[in-house]
Amino acid sequence: MKAKILCVGTEILLGDIVNTNAQFISKGLADLGIEVYHQSVVGDNPQRLLDEFRKSFERTDIIITTGGLGPTQDDLTKETGAEYFNREMILDKNSLTQLESYFKKMGKSNLEGNNIKQAYFPEGASIFPNPHGTAPGCCMEQNGKILIILPGPPKEAKPMFENYVVPFLKKYSNGVIKSKTLRVCGIGESSMAESVSDLINNSVNPTVAPYAKENDTILRITARANTEEEAVELIKPIESKIREKLGINIYGEDDDTMEEVIGKLLINKELTISSAESCTGGLIAARLVNYPGISAVFKEGAVTYTNEAKMKRLGVKKDTLDKFTAVSSETAKEMAEGIAKTANTDIGIATTGVAGPGGGTYEKPVGLVYIGLYINGETYVKKCQYSGSRDVVRQRATMTALDLIRRHLINS
Amino acid sequence: MKAKILCVGTEILLGDIVNTNAQFISKGLADLGIEVYHQSVVGDNPQRLLDEFRKSFERTDIIITTGGLGPTQDDLTKETGAEYFNREMILDKNSLTQLESYFKKMGKSNLEGNNIKQAYFPEGASIFPNPHGTAPGCCMEQNGKILIILPGPPKEAKPMFENYVVPFLKKYSNGVIKSKTLRVCGIGESSMAESVSDLINNSVNPTVAPYAKENDTILRITARANTEEEAVELIKPIESKIREKLGINIYGEDDDTMEEVIGKLLINKELTISSAESCTGGLIAARLVNYPGISAVFKEGAVTYTNEAKMKRLGVKKDTLDKFTAVSSETAKEMAEGIAKTANTDIGIATTGVAGPGGGTYEKPVGLVYIGLYINGETYVKKCQYSGSRDVVRQRATMTALDLIRRHLINS
Repeated sequence: MKAKILCVGTEILLGDIVNTNAQFISKGLADLGIEVYHQSVVGDNPQRLLDEFRKSFERTDIIITTGGLGPTQDDLTKETGAEYFNREMILDKNSLTQLESYFKKMGKSNLEGNNIKQAYFPEGASIFPNPHGTAPGCCMEQNGKILIILPGPPKEAKPMFENYVVPFLKKYSNGVIKSKTLRVCGIGESSMAESVSDLINNSVNPTVAPYAKENDTILRITARANTEEEAVELIKPIESKIREKLGINIYGEDDDTMEEVIGKLLINKELTISSAESCTGGLIAARLVNYPGISAVFKEGAVTYTNEAKMKRLGVKKDTLDKFTAVSSETAKEMAEGIAKTANTDIGIATTGVAGPGGGTYEKPVGLVYIGLYINGETYVKKCQYSGSRDVVRQRATMTALDLIRRHLINS
Repeated sequence: MKAKILCVGTEILLGDIVNTNAQFISKGLADLGIEVYHQSVVGDNPQRLLDEFRKSFERTDIIITTGGLGPTQDDLTKETGAEYFNREMILDKNSLTQLESYFKKMGKSNLEGNNIKQAYFPEGASIFPNPHGTAPGCCMEQNGKILIILPGPPKEAKPMFENYVVPFLKKYSNGVIKSKTLRVCGIGESSMAESVSDLINNSVNPTVAPYAKENDTILRITARANTEEEAVELIKPIESKIREKLGINIYGEDDDTMEEVIGKLLINKELTISSAESCTGGLIAARLVNYPGISAVFKEGAVTYTNEAKMKRLGVKKDTLDKFTAVSSETAKEMAEGIAKTANTDIGIATTGVAGPGGGTYEKPVGLVYIGLYINGETYVKKCQYSGSRDVVRQRATMTALDLIRRHLINS
């Protein structure tokens, strides 16, 4: 089977948003062994969309669209699909009921005029419910051609793709492409690539490829086989070779997140944690709280942005701030110890630094961050120098702080 | 002029990377008044690429490609372009010299075999140097058709586009397309669309279009004119009509962020703020700290995830927690008042809720969040019910909390 991904939205053609839907759909189809020959974007223009359906179905079996399911007049993907397959648009009672209850839940007494449009579908289409929004998706099959229609917002399109489209398409998948992702933190992409360069350069099936993402570096092992089981077997030996070489620098695999890894380690070791943040301003706490189970071990976080708060909340000494300033190893140490003490936790993590864009000096340049970690009666301070925007500096400092916790938990 | 963006790379079709090139090129062309009718992605397959050139040039004047300029055998974009325009590939001495010095700079004694390929170009092409990598770009014009070839890595393609392609295309830009974005919070996309539906449906130039982004809703006014000044003049009356209808629901324009808007309001009104977060777990503090100037007014944040912390840090009464539980209007109120008192600030913002996925009950379902705001001696509590993942609930609660601060600041 050949598939095409067709994203609908003038906002994409205007460059207002990055088209992330095409990426996860392509990934999902690759995992199913369905080849994507083409990704395409058209504006909210029914004539051009119909044109695309006609041209594309000449050379492909499956078209998956995203976007154009909104309540407004220029959202016409379903209508255009109905026209292509020559079907009526009819009201789906189920979707209408769900739509009404969605609006009730949102505290709106009754359905807003426009939205009723979202309960209409091409006759005979199978409908994919949308628990995350007001636009259900749908699917039509005719003369061996399959048209799958998904909403535009990724937070709606992604779960719909995973929960409905993948199971639906399984029967068309010929063989599988199975990937395993190893997540790496603490070494850069190039040094990681070098230490496993032999595997990257010489492996054919599975292949090994490095990618640098926003905040971490990943290594993907991809195997092609007839069954998922065979693919898994192909991946195993390569994975263990890589693990030998990268060791503790691998913090997780596939969809693991750093906060999940730390959360589980803390729970297993029955260690409680608290955070005291200056330049990261709550990002560390927010990451920890991403992990649903965290309440068992995360006691509290303090965002002590001012010196006053550092002293009052954490008991950082005035002398320390006067003598070494807020951005110093000494302050980071007292912050980590202070939050652990006042929150009465086994571990205290602290950050203080110059996130920028202003505030940098020759001695304390923008991007300088001290990370303090109090654990089991010991305190460690890591000095980091990052480059990049305020946001990048804060995100990287957060990731380094979390990774510092992880490394000490593993070794403790 | 009509343009098409054609990104070349099997890695994009496999979903290994998100195609960000298409976004910034589209944006740049829109600013030039060059319409992008189509974005497309093909794999590293010369036959299909040639096919695309033939099909696309039937309906478009400009094609901009990214990718397929690497040293490997399947990087064939330039070669395919040469074939389409029926030209020879010839060695460009300049590019060769730059390539050699680039390799020296990278500490590599001499040019690696394959890379010499990157100094070959279609005869007569204008060449775009690439200071950020080994693959220069190029441009060919023939019978009114323009083919612009850029490298794949965004950090190479973006500067090349800005420094060479934009100046080159200026002469083809027929007028400008100028957009103004109004950022809306507190009403959904559909209710917003309805309240300005006459403008959305009846405006031609400028056009008015609504978009829903991750955490807020935007309304874009787009005008075509010969000069930027004329475009701005066209936008003004429509903008004021929209502002009349949406009023305080518009929190900012263009690249404004909610935290920036609030930060400036706080600084102007000389009001200090502190935060006490349960379910949002630091996201509110993190958003406020995104704004570089915030240190003047943001004193501290507390992430009081446990009842113990709510009592100890914020002075929430045990009775309140026992009688009404942590997720209640009463607790939100005491949290907001407690943080303002202990941090000694004019404003205290607090959140407590059920972010999920677990922990929901019939009375307190997942997605229920109470937001408390203490300001100028008064305390307000807003009860919200969100749907979506843990992350979505927390992001939306954060946005609502920030918007609540904004509305009270404007009215205070």
